[in-house]
Amino acid sequence: MGFDPETLKYDDRGLVPAIAQDAASGEVLMMAWMNADAVRRTLESGRVTYWSRSRQCFWVKGETSGHVQKLVEMRIDCDRDCVLVLVEQSGPACHTNRRSCFYTALRDGQEVEIMSPIEGDLG
Amino acid sequence: MGFDPETLKYDDRGLVPAIAQDAASGEVLMMAWMNADAVRRTLESGRVTYWSRSRQCFWVKGETSGHVQKLVEMRIDCDRDCVLVLVEQSGPACHTNRRSCFYTALRDGQEVEIMSPIEGDLG
Repeated sequence: MGFDPETLKYDDRGLVPAIAQDAASGEVLMMAWMNADAVRRTLESGRVTYWSRSRQCFWVKGETSGHVQKLVEMRIDCDRDCVLVLVEQSGPACHTNRRSCFYTALRDGQEVEIMSPIEGDLG
Repeated sequence: MGFDPETLKYDDRGLVPAIAQDAASGEVLMMAWMNADAVRRTLESGRVTYWSRSRQCFWVKGETSGHVQKLVEMRIDCDRDCVLVLVEQSGPACHTNRRSCFYTALRDGQEVEIMSPIEGDLG
């Protein structure tokens, strides 16, 4: 059946969590939020677009940094309340210039940094 | 520094999204929620434990189904408001008996089922 973004189950702020995964490596890059319009814009433009809760505006990933996410495929989960976007990520996904936002591992009760910032701009 | 689950940034319900990823294949299996106690229990027990919003109780993944998630590593994101758990998943992660909850892809504007339920119980 045809997909209608309005049929996803949004929270009381009208948002669903969106997980971005590198389509080639499988690495989980980041998690952000989408409303129905962000889902629609992402599908129509092929550029992953989130809703910024802090700035209350659409956030076309990489629009200012150049670290864009080209949509390879969007998937939805069984409960229709979470979105997975498989992407081609240009440069780092994280604002700290690391490839992934999940660069802190918990090992033996300690926080361990397992990823360094990318040097220069590979965007 | 030593990790304290209370230092994560929980939402107004006291929860953070937790993404479960197959540690071996990289497949994203599911997304659920954890409160600080669920984070602590997961780290202490090595069994991934969520907080069920619908039932308002701890949810030791696989406790009834046998489809347990053995924790390989927990990671936190740059904003400390999302958790990634790398797991060894026994059998299907999804309650529909599919390996992953993200079995519906959006292709050419249509919803396409890309994964079948696992036959029998491989738990």
